[in-house]
Amino acid sequence: MKIGLIGTGRIGLMHARNLAAHPRCELVAVQDAHAPSAQEAAAATGAQAVAEVDELIEQVDAVMIASSTDTHCDLITRSAQAGKAILCEKPIHLDIAEVDRCKASIASATAPIQIGFNRRFDPGHTALARAVAEGEIGQPEMLVITSRDPAPPPVEYLKVSGGLFRDMMIHDLDIARFILGADPAEISAFGTSMVDPAIGELGDVDTAMVTMRFPSGALVHINCSRRSVYGYDQRIEAFGSEGMLISGNHTDTQVERYGAKQTGARERLLDFFIERYAKSYVNEVDAFVDTIEGKREVSPTFEDGRQALVLADAALESLHSGKAVALG
Amino acid sequence: MKIGLIGTGRIGLMHARNLAAHPRCELVAVQDAHAPSAQEAAAATGAQAVAEVDELIEQVDAVMIASSTDTHCDLITRSAQAGKAILCEKPIHLDIAEVDRCKASIASATAPIQIGFNRRFDPGHTALARAVAEGEIGQPEMLVITSRDPAPPPVEYLKVSGGLFRDMMIHDLDIARFILGADPAEISAFGTSMVDPAIGELGDVDTAMVTMRFPSGALVHINCSRRSVYGYDQRIEAFGSEGMLISGNHTDTQVERYGAKQTGARERLLDFFIERYAKSYVNEVDAFVDTIEGKREVSPTFEDGRQALVLADAALESLHSGKAVALG
Amino acid sequence: MKIGLIGTGRIGLMHARNLAAHPRCELVAVQDAHAPSAQEAAAATGAQAVAEVDELIEQVDAVMIASSTDTHCDLITRSAQAGKAILCEKPIHLDIAEVDRCKASIASATAPIQIGFNRRFDPGHTALARAVAEGEIGQPEMLVITSRDPAPPPVEYLKVSGGLFRDMMIHDLDIARFILGADPAEISAFGTSMVDPAIGELGDVDTAMVTMRFPSGALVHINCSRRSVYGYDQRIEAFGSEGMLISGNHTDTQVERYGAKQTGARERLLDFFIERYAKSYVNEVDAFVDTIEGKREVSPTFEDGRQALVLADAALESLHSGKAVALG
Amino acid sequence: MKIGLIGTGRIGLMHARNLAAHPRCELVAVQDAHAPSAQEAAAATGAQAVAEVDELIEQVDAVMIASSTDTHCDLITRSAQAGKAILCEKPIHLDIAEVDRCKASIASATAPIQIGFNRRFDPGHTALARAVAEGEIGQPEMLVITSRDPAPPPVEYLKVSGGLFRDMMIHDLDIARFILGADPAEISAFGTSMVDPAIGELGDVDTAMVTMRFPSGALVHINCSRRSVYGYDQRIEAFGSEGMLISGNHTDTQVERYGAKQTGARERLLDFFIERYAKSYVNEVDAFVDTIEGKREVSPTFEDGRQALVLADAALESLHSGKAVALG
Repeated sequence: MKIGLIGTGRIGLMHARNLAAHPRCELVAVQDAHAPSAQEAAAATGAQAVAEVDELIEQVDAVMIASSTDTHCDLITRSAQAGKAILCEKPIHLDIAEVDRCKASIASATAPIQIGFNRRFDPGHTALARAVAEGEIGQPEMLVITSRDPAPPPVEYLKVSGGLFRDMMIHDLDIARFILGADPAEISAFGTSMVDPAIGELGDVDTAMVTMRFPSGALVHINCSRRSVYGYDQRIEAFGSEGMLISGNHTDTQVERYGAKQTGARERLLDFFIERYAKSYVNEVDAFVDTIEGKREVSPTFEDGRQALVLADAALESLHSGKAVALG
Repeated sequence: MKIGLIGTGRIGLMHARNLAAHPRCELVAVQDAHAPSAQEAAAATGAQAVAEVDELIEQVDAVMIASSTDTHCDLITRSAQAGKAILCEKPIHLDIAEVDRCKASIASATAPIQIGFNRRFDPGHTALARAVAEGEIGQPEMLVITSRDPAPPPVEYLKVSGGLFRDMMIHDLDIARFILGADPAEISAFGTSMVDPAIGELGDVDTAMVTMRFPSGALVHINCSRRSVYGYDQRIEAFGSEGMLISGNHTDTQVERYGAKQTGARERLLDFFIERYAKSYVNEVDAFVDTIEGKREVSPTFEDGRQALVLADAALESLHSGKAVALG
Repeated sequence: MKIGLIGTGRIGLMHARNLAAHPRCELVAVQDAHAPSAQEAAAATGAQAVAEVDELIEQVDAVMIASSTDTHCDLITRSAQAGKAILCEKPIHLDIAEVDRCKASIASATAPIQIGFNRRFDPGHTALARAVAEGEIGQPEMLVITSRDPAPPPVEYLKVSGGLFRDMMIHDLDIARFILGADPAEISAFGTSMVDPAIGELGDVDTAMVTMRFPSGALVHINCSRRSVYGYDQRIEAFGSEGMLISGNHTDTQVERYGAKQTGARERLLDFFIERYAKSYVNEVDAFVDTIEGKREVSPTFEDGRQALVLADAALESLHSGKAVALG
Repeated sequence: MKIGLIGTGRIGLMHARNLAAHPRCELVAVQDAHAPSAQEAAAATGAQAVAEVDELIEQVDAVMIASSTDTHCDLITRSAQAGKAILCEKPIHLDIAEVDRCKASIASATAPIQIGFNRRFDPGHTALARAVAEGEIGQPEMLVITSRDPAPPPVEYLKVSGGLFRDMMIHDLDIARFILGADPAEISAFGTSMVDPAIGELGDVDTAMVTMRFPSGALVHINCSRRSVYGYDQRIEAFGSEGMLISGNHTDTQVERYGAKQTGARERLLDFFIERYAKSYVNEVDAFVDTIEGKREVSPTFEDGRQALVLADAALESLHSGKAVALG
């Protein structure tokens, strides 16, 4: 199985290495609008750097899209129409209308299209979701999701990011749907700017809480912050009629310190999403290869990517209106 | 200092023992509408069981009120007008109009009136609140409060309880005000009935989430459930610009179990609020004695009790309207 | 049931309060060589301070002995010969010959004699011991016992203490016998003086490790230090063919701190043995009352007290000889 | 830098992959007495499978030796005399006389010889050792090392393993020397066979405890078991005048389970040493490359390998004699 990678920035380069290391696929080509970046990825993996995406698409069985968000819809359309399997980074697009146009354009595509919600493949979150699905906590009644980035990205990035809900919380909105296996009926959002005034000046928030009600009655809370001085804080708590499951944080070692003033101190949490979710990115590629080989259903699907954006948009609407937004 | 106790049910009896054991006050009289209950409390503590509240009030310096909620306002008024110090169990009343009438009736009272939000005196929650106040986590940005009872009380009780927000979450609404040292600007609530259909039939909820926005921009999430099979789940997480503090759960021992299928398993959480918050009830009485002796300001005040009810009412309004409710 | 207390120092006063609070016994008299100390204990509990031990013994059903170690044998003998039940603090005596003389003198006594190894009554250690006895970890194969005091007692005390093995590790030697329900076949000890040179100058050690082999093949490790800057470190780990149990340390709250440099920091361990083992002292008295009432067998027995001293002596012998000492 | 690997069994294959993935060295040749095994390793890494060790040695700059223990001395000698850098798996040999002969044979070798005590490169153990070295816990006073394998290896292996002390505890003996930066003055051992009678019939033990005294007065306890049903239990506790450090166990996820009977349950520990110490093996190779490049001193040295065997032999002597064995 030959795979090509479009977009070799920070995340793309990580994907390039994972694809190159996978035993059942071959990374044959990489492309980036910034040619030296593609050449670096090529050098690191033995793939060929190509100049044009069409050149890449035509020589592969599958395309991984890790270029900038505004290019996703076009690249999905071109790859799908060429009959290629697709793994596209989230979000599909920041504009739901564009997503819907893209959806129409690929209606007849038969090759699988997987969206890069990598957290679905994190061993801890996956184990939690599986236990919920298997009934370990009985009827699910609540999710409490904590999602805090170590530090905000540059304001230049934030300007084109789509804002906290579409750029950052979209992962958490997706994981809630994934764990509960359903779509929410209602969503409400609160947000403020406490981390950096520059973020508020953009009209964006950096501190946010969302509540969702699912048709079963289950309630979901998500909190996000653009700053967490103790590291990348990523926790999920699932509570049900027969118990609770927590998928907790990660540190590099298991060293504990005891001194005259305190006990049990651990090091900072893993700081960087690529490090924290290293295994999930590997597993994501593995799942994609399995999907292409017909060993599993596509998941998360294009529609999962679309629904997460629908929720992010509704959260934003609630933030502005002060009202809960009914869904579906 | 002579103290009298009105109401010797489950909580009252516990207070009776704590008052009797306190080195700087003397429990001289107990009263209960159900005389045998008062006699039992008298026998356990060496206090005298009296038949009438006026008989009790006139012979003491301070009155602890632990009778049924509907009697609180009347007893506060009578005790205050008699010039006695008061420690009254929460809530003051379920009807804010009654609370306001009571407030007017005691306007000229000079003896301290303390409301029984015992959790403010829990060593863990207190340490967290103090650390927040001292700036240990910088600017507070979020509170996440988990508050789950092991099992719902009898439906007969629930009918007169005022519902989840006024009866149960009122503690959490108070602790949020206590930790942040401010009043919220906005509140939004979601609730469903998943634990027992009988609760839903009463028009009450058993599973609820509330979000509040404070004037500083800080956001607060509270989740409550009337059922928690693993015990009484009481956690507070305070997150700020320079760190996070968690006040966690309690178990009876520190025993961990490692077996062929799992590691690190602990026993159930302490199940019963009187056991979980045993120290907070002792500290509450101690603070009350200190207050009477002029060593500290009254806290929580009558107004704190009133504000918590205002928030519970606003949460209920939001639950029904689907809109965030502006406050203050 | 009337109880008298001999010895009202630090531990004695704590016992006085526990006896006074017990619902099924009455502390009627206290005695101490230092009369003002007895009067203080009397004032705190409502007991009568008496001048002479015989005066105390004759008016009670049971005697608790918490006076200095050198008085234990004499007081046991006098109380037992007067037909009184006895709860005597550990150790029985520092000289095994005296213990054996005492044993002979009470051979015909029929009232129960319980020795004050309070840790057998700690909820955590008890739960661990019960789980081992019930086979939860299969065949027990190892115990690892950590026992570190926050700081050494005054050198004046150490001079008459009998040394680390007889004064401090005797608790751990007893708990090993208790958990495994057997006597060891062999013991080996290493010790050094690293905490305070003054301790070494006494010929004592302040840092020690002991290994024991039990007839089943099970091995036991104990480590003791006279200094632990992070608080009173008291842990037991039991390892067997089917799992492991750990009875861990205690802190006052469950607060965790997360900051820019570290995560999960807890406060210092409870520092003081009376605080750390508060429940075990209460349970010990309760067990003693149960024993007198015939509801349980005496435990720990006089012979348990004697065997712990035998082990401490053997450890000391091994320390000096550099050889493992065969026992029994 | 060209590296060759001798021995491509389970550990060898793992090393092959790590060498192949290292950015600053090239695995050019692999050799194994069992040719198909070498071919498999060659296929997995792109190295060439060669038939004879001399053929391998002559074409490389450095040799990694992961063949059976009895071949180590000969291969070290041949590689060293050919001027090659060496990374040799532990133990050097089971017979100290052979080790000493090897030592003599390589006396004039100048290229670095590193011994494969991989645990020195584990991030947790390394962080603990560095903190001890930097004085974080003041004067080190005790180490408590727990080292339990999930299950015993086949009896056929055990027959030629050299026994528990030389085969398994040798890692822990080395890590004690590493952390304390010194050689012990005295060692004492206890051992029994409780896991499998077949092990006892070999004259070996499967359950063992060792105590060492270091010249500073510091004491070290090590416990080993050939069976641990809850997974691979690998902990180090370092205790000193100013605190304690613990390097704890590893699990695959951070999921905790709360149910009606228990709370906080985690999954089994990582079971397999190659998985548990995955990072340490990678770091070990990296350190070797750094050493060859002159960026760090050789460590652990041939002499470290020799001293660990001296300690294992002395432990065995103590086990049989019942006496502490003086060292050095």
